[in-house]
Amino acid sequence: MNEFYQKDIISIKDFDKEKLEKIFTLTEKIMQLNPSERREICKGKTLGYLFYEPSTRTRLSFDSAMASIGGNSLGISNVASSSTQKGESLADTVRMISIYSDVLVLRHTLDGSSRFAAEVSDKPLINAGSGTEEHPTQAIQDLFTMKKEKKKIDGLKIGIVGDLKYGRTVYSLLHGLGNYDVDVRLISPESLRIRSDSTYEIKQKLDLTETTNIEEHLDELDVLYVTRIQKERFPDEEEYLKVKGSYVVGLDMLKRMKDDAIILHPLPRIDEISAEVDNTKNAKYFKQVEYGMHTRAALLGVTLNENGF
Amino acid sequence: MNEFYQKDIISIKDFDKEKLEKIFTLTEKIMQLNPSERREICKGKTLGYLFYEPSTRTRLSFDSAMASIGGNSLGISNVASSSTQKGESLADTVRMISIYSDVLVLRHTLDGSSRFAAEVSDKPLINAGSGTEEHPTQAIQDLFTMKKEKKKIDGLKIGIVGDLKYGRTVYSLLHGLGNYDVDVRLISPESLRIRSDSTYEIKQKLDLTETTNIEEHLDELDVLYVTRIQKERFPDEEEYLKVKGSYVVGLDMLKRMKDDAIILHPLPRIDEISAEVDNTKNAKYFKQVEYGMHTRAALLGVTLNENGF
Amino acid sequence: MNEFYQKDIISIKDFDKEKLEKIFTLTEKIMQLNPSERREICKGKTLGYLFYEPSTRTRLSFDSAMASIGGNSLGISNVASSSTQKGESLADTVRMISIYSDVLVLRHTLDGSSRFAAEVSDKPLINAGSGTEEHPTQAIQDLFTMKKEKKKIDGLKIGIVGDLKYGRTVYSLLHGLGNYDVDVRLISPESLRIRSDSTYEIKQKLDLTETTNIEEHLDELDVLYVTRIQKERFPDEEEYLKVKGSYVVGLDMLKRMKDDAIILHPLPRIDEISAEVDNTKNAKYFKQVEYGMHTRAALLGVTLNENGF
Repeated sequence: MNEFYQKDIISIKDFDKEKLEKIFTLTEKIMQLNPSERREICKGKTLGYLFYEPSTRTRLSFDSAMASIGGNSLGISNVASSSTQKGESLADTVRMISIYSDVLVLRHTLDGSSRFAAEVSDKPLINAGSGTEEHPTQAIQDLFTMKKEKKKIDGLKIGIVGDLKYGRTVYSLLHGLGNYDVDVRLISPESLRIRSDSTYEIKQKLDLTETTNIEEHLDELDVLYVTRIQKERFPDEEEYLKVKGSYVVGLDMLKRMKDDAIILHPLPRIDEISAEVDNTKNAKYFKQVEYGMHTRAALLGVTLNENGF
Repeated sequence: MNEFYQKDIISIKDFDKEKLEKIFTLTEKIMQLNPSERREICKGKTLGYLFYEPSTRTRLSFDSAMASIGGNSLGISNVASSSTQKGESLADTVRMISIYSDVLVLRHTLDGSSRFAAEVSDKPLINAGSGTEEHPTQAIQDLFTMKKEKKKIDGLKIGIVGDLKYGRTVYSLLHGLGNYDVDVRLISPESLRIRSDSTYEIKQKLDLTETTNIEEHLDELDVLYVTRIQKERFPDEEEYLKVKGSYVVGLDMLKRMKDDAIILHPLPRIDEISAEVDNTKNAKYFKQVEYGMHTRAALLGVTLNENGF
Repeated sequence: MNEFYQKDIISIKDFDKEKLEKIFTLTEKIMQLNPSERREICKGKTLGYLFYEPSTRTRLSFDSAMASIGGNSLGISNVASSSTQKGESLADTVRMISIYSDVLVLRHTLDGSSRFAAEVSDKPLINAGSGTEEHPTQAIQDLFTMKKEKKKIDGLKIGIVGDLKYGRTVYSLLHGLGNYDVDVRLISPESLRIRSDSTYEIKQKLDLTETTNIEEHLDELDVLYVTRIQKERFPDEEEYLKVKGSYVVGLDMLKRMKDDAIILHPLPRIDEISAEVDNTKNAKYFKQVEYGMHTRAALLGVTLNENGF
């Protein structure tokens, strides 16, 4: 029996290097199957989704992943606006959806929601983003993209730039990177530095440098992971515009980077990466989307098949 | 040819005991099939849904039922908010969806809507709740749950508690129970008693006792069917709180009931059943959800296969 | 290799008579297949839709077409109200959906949107309505309906009545008809005449008569294509009511037409065709819906299969 069978996927912290590498191997395998072989993996199985916080992007990634392995999806894409919202508890809604499906995908605003929901669900639960820090399938997608595009993760010099304070993606990614021997540069304005209370654990595992200056690091980076800076985070617009401008990734910046450095982004991208970068060989953020579908397909397949696939 | 083939399912009143028992037998059969056998029943068939009154719960029950027998679903989950709503008539919308599908599932606020829609639809129509009284598939789900969990329906003592005035579920259930030899206790505040104009027919078939006092009946009941009491139904809040409090099903109440009594609820449940009841062997409201999926799968299967399944 | 394989469908202007006839032949073929043969055509393939302008009708037509040939659909039915709308560009959203699917279906308010989107999409793109003039699949559906019901298109006398100024359907239909030898009467109030700047091209290919008087043409028409007149288009209500009244198709009007004339309408119909017409042998607007599903299935099938089907 495979170790992931019928297991919940709640936190990236539950994945050590060995587990991550197994998922990467399975993702490679799934990418090599032809479509009809691939559709046998979860043929006729049903994914039930429950999004308390709407996320079209994540939902479609799971939906397409499930379709690509022969399954189908149903559920509630926006609980707040659905008729479910008549005061029913999270527990009851989770129980209902878990009856209708083989695996449950939950997105929720609160920390701990997935752990709680997994306990009341009869079926394995996958956390599709919860609270301030957890987005395990995004982290797996990001790590797989690095591995696939750079042929390794150990030894990489990785810059993460933008809003590091808000945005669960960064926290999950850092916890995932904690399993590897990497050199991480956290680049952000002072006011959007990573929350120190959340990174105590990460700092014990990971070589982290914090800075506001992206310029000094550019020529050393193998990977530049860009995140969005939201205007709403700034008390005044002038400050926002100054910060935003200094971190925009364009061809100029690219020139100062290694020839084979890759640019990643969890998307949606607004203007923190210029469109002119899209057609360079360094731009891998759409590859990242594709790998996200494949890693999710691998996770669903391994969760729903006793003997793997 | 099976008698349900290509027939509409409009009203629970069209189901006599013999028909109900046939559906129960088919539901038992469908529950024993393995997933791949099951998916042959409506392989490649399409269910078209049309919800003029949104109901995520009922829609997902049909959707998952159809998926479990190999079919797919499409349609409009909220006509009011859809672009269909450009003044198009019910008849035209029904005709359109019926062209795209093999069976039509309609939810509508008005009495008689399903009968009307069935006449203009080329395809068999299933009423998923209409007007004040009709919700035939919910009644079949509820009856099957009693049969399955109590091994019989005849002879049962059944309490129905809560808001009996509004809520079509109760009316449909009573009409369904009219086919059996049961003893029914209707327990509600004065102001939420069942509408006497609607129950003339039911009273001729069914042994009904009306009361406001749940306590006197508890020790006799085999089934307690709980419904939600909505605050909006009460002119003042004090009255509401008094009523609500007296009907909450908790462990205390359970202790005064038969050891093997079962608690049902059409869901969503707010707080008329305490969470502490959920893990008792008496709580069958989530089983009821599961049986709802299976009874709907049986109904869809028998409607769409000339020689049954 | 078939000439439509992996090709975008952007404009009806890209379809000459030969291409249209090929699609019609394929539509005839698809209609003769039994359901399980039909489901082999796009088995396991995924249609990704992206509707910047909601259109339940068009979306369901594509969805059911894809289901009927064995594929599935996913996407965003209303971009404006989806979480995608965080300022992401059309290009990025198109790239994302194209990664998740084998063919992309786009509806957009702007002229040129489809051409632009097709350039950034990795997968073939089908325009499901854009800007003021383009709705190629609707035109193909309309032309196929004429061909199927009248056994030919060349030689037909076709009246198009209603709002000819707004509504992209009419423009696309006229461009499609430009490939045939037909006699077209454009019947509308003065203020809703077809835009002359848009019809320069059409007028070189097509014998067009413009009139406000429907009566004079009725007895000659083989096809009467009715479109909706929207109240909002008129500066004052009196004018609207006068115009509306004079173009309503009822049994009276039908009596003055050829016995075998057919009435078409892109739907939704409000009251420009009386319900009494629905059951006459002349009413073909629901047949038109059905043919729309089949023509779209043929288009999807031929786009996604190298050697056709």
